Amino acid sequence: MKQFIILGSTGSIGTSSLDVIETNPGQFKVAGLVAGTSADLMIEQVRKFKPKAVSMNDHAAAKKVHEAVGGKTRVYAGYEGMLELIEDIDADAAINGLVGSVGLMPTLTALESGMDVLLANKETIVMGGPLVMETARRTGKRIVPIDSEMSAIYQCIKGEKHEGIKRLILTASGGPFVDFKKKALESVTLEQALKHPTWAMGTKNTIDSATLMNKGLEVIEASCLFDIPGDRIDVTIHRSSVAHSFVEFIDGSLLCQVSDPDMRLAIQYSMTDPLRLPSEYGGLDFTKPFSLAFEPPDIDRFPCLGLAFRALELGGTAPAVMNGANEQAVESFVDGLIRFQDIPDLVSDVMENHTFIENPTVEELIGTDKESKRTIAAKVRSRVR
Amino acid sequence: MKQFIILGSTGSIGTSSLDVIETNPGQFKVAGLVAGTSADLMIEQVRKFKPKAVSMNDHAAAKKVHEAVGGKTRVYAGYEGMLELIEDIDADAAINGLVGSVGLMPTLTALESGMDVLLANKETIVMGGPLVMETARRTGKRIVPIDSEMSAIYQCIKGEKHEGIKRLILTASGGPFVDFKKKALESVTLEQALKHPTWAMGTKNTIDSATLMNKGLEVIEASCLFDIPGDRIDVTIHRSSVAHSFVEFIDGSLLCQVSDPDMRLAIQYSMTDPLRLPSEYGGLDFTKPFSLAFEPPDIDRFPCLGLAFRALELGGTAPAVMNGANEQAVESFVDGLIRFQDIPDLVSDVMENHTFIENPTVEELIGTDKESKRTIAAKVRSRVR
Repeated sequence: MKQFIILGSTGSIGTSSLDVIETNPGQFKVAGLVAGTSADLMIEQVRKFKPKAVSMNDHAAAKKVHEAVGGKTRVYAGYEGMLELIEDIDADAAINGLVGSVGLMPTLTALESGMDVLLANKETIVMGGPLVMETARRTGKRIVPIDSEMSAIYQCIKGEKHEGIKRLILTASGGPFVDFKKKALESVTLEQALKHPTWAMGTKNTIDSATLMNKGLEVIEASCLFDIPGDRIDVTIHRSSVAHSFVEFIDGSLLCQVSDPDMRLAIQYSMTDPLRLPSEYGGLDFTKPFSLAFEPPDIDRFPCLGLAFRALELGGTAPAVMNGANEQAVESFVDGLIRFQDIPDLVSDVMENHTFIENPTVEELIGTDKESKRTIAAKVRSRVR
Repeated sequence: MKQFIILGSTGSIGTSSLDVIETNPGQFKVAGLVAGTSADLMIEQVRKFKPKAVSMNDHAAAKKVHEAVGGKTRVYAGYEGMLELIEDIDADAAINGLVGSVGLMPTLTALESGMDVLLANKETIVMGGPLVMETARRTGKRIVPIDSEMSAIYQCIKGEKHEGIKRLILTASGGPFVDFKKKALESVTLEQALKHPTWAMGTKNTIDSATLMNKGLEVIEASCLFDIPGDRIDVTIHRSSVAHSFVEFIDGSLLCQVSDPDMRLAIQYSMTDPLRLPSEYGGLDFTKPFSLAFEPPDIDRFPCLGLAFRALELGGTAPAVMNGANEQAVESFVDGLIRFQDIPDLVSDVMENHTFIENPTVEELIGTDKESKRTIAAKVRSRVR
């Protein structure tokens, strides 16, 4: 049985991963679980999946979990505790469902500890793509993407040569504001932004989908994961989220992966690759008419997408700066401190004024991320005053 | 340079194949050409592509070709001449662009002579699928499909395990009569039937597309080529012929191959597989909105599709009977002897009254084909009188 450590086990990707594990008895085993503050849910998960160890980022939550299930399960605490758990516990792969830049070190630690990384945490690759890919190469471990778009591309290029790939075309739902005029975008509310038309995801990803920054992050992610430069990556708006991306080959043939939107499908695939296991997810119904529509995105209304292409082109610390700034700006929007359209403005501003490092170390990447967040936070505070 | 023998070089697949060869100088070489009666075009082709040998089915045409280019090129004649050419001339692969049951023996001969077969002649597989696949296995040679739907499936399953395949879904344009009511189908003309909405093909294939027998033949072809039973093959009507078929995997994920309809793309792919070469064919334009629509086929209005599923289920000589009957019925329709809706009626009639052979030899298959055609011809004559 394949053993997994699940990072972010109480979040959207984590609970879906556990759902896949529960639905396939005898196939997968949970070796470790990592979460933030949700002690009650973690206690439930421990009782059901019996991992060797768990870690809670919040110390009070760790204490509560320890009191409930500490007898049979080792309980770690904090950021360092998470990394220790990854080093201490044997597993075949770590499922990284963490949100934001905090996911970088655990990805690197898992690779160094001899695990494959099944990656939903796209910020990891956006921040430190070259470093992560180099670590994977050096350790001989695999990065298998969980994002439905990345999984689609991963499936489409299976059995193909890299030199045969001409272009990647990422599909984007367009988010809740796809039809909003530029003027109307200025006054959209948090509540509106959280209503994603096709996918149920966490808050950060849902807001990123509304600004199209989510697709921007995926453009950078795809470029790193599949070693394709940004000028050979396109984005197409596909509202129904059934086609999950295309690969165009040099001969003009395209392959596309399609399925009903259910993130458990890509999660399960990442866990079974290169094989497949039966599932109840995904399958399309050809007994009824349906259609798949595609239209070009509007970078003028959704400037975050343009910022991501720019960051990818610049390379070095630019994607980390953009990603950190975006994380902080989204948080400020969620906290009601800024307007929706302030997100791209603030991110762009920070990108234009940062000290560029061409080949950053992991410490420099983390420093850049923090600095970028601090700058946004300061800008937001000065506006609020 | 890969060397090819092209069977049916003056027809639709043949001229497209030569176009691909001409467009990629230094990649492919023409070792032999085989055609029926078009002496003038063959002489042109010989002058341009300089094959070692050619064969014309028509003896007068062979004589004419010999007089024009016989000095440098060996000229064979007739059905036997074609088979001798395949045995005599060394090549890496034979491109089988022949139409109808005449394509069976050359496919077997090419495999036995150590060549891969790039197969557009679907009747070959429909008639003698198990025999052809067994010959390919025994000789260690490959059958690479050229039909756009088969090529799509071939590309989608690359790198996948056979046990991971759940279902094949073949796309069909629906032909020119997709929206015709049953009553209206009774009075359609040959001219109407020859107006295919998306593909430019020869007469036989175009009529088969109008009856949906073409899709029926492909269902049988796909079942043999990919070793998937008929109850795991579906057909979907997709009018724009941009999506060229889907493969559904057991986990619910589907892969689909898409490209602008141009048969040269699938031809080139079959010639370069497992690699790809750049081409001007295929690629989609994502800078403009477009959509791909799918709807279930109507077997009541297009009974040929149902007949094919039935023949596939019966196995043995049933597909050969159906195929032979259909060939003759289409010819009678083209000759103005029967109505469009007589095609499925006649084919069904012959299928119900034939002497079934479970494991036919190649001679029995050819005998079945001839018998089936004779029966149709007799039925047509008795009706005409």
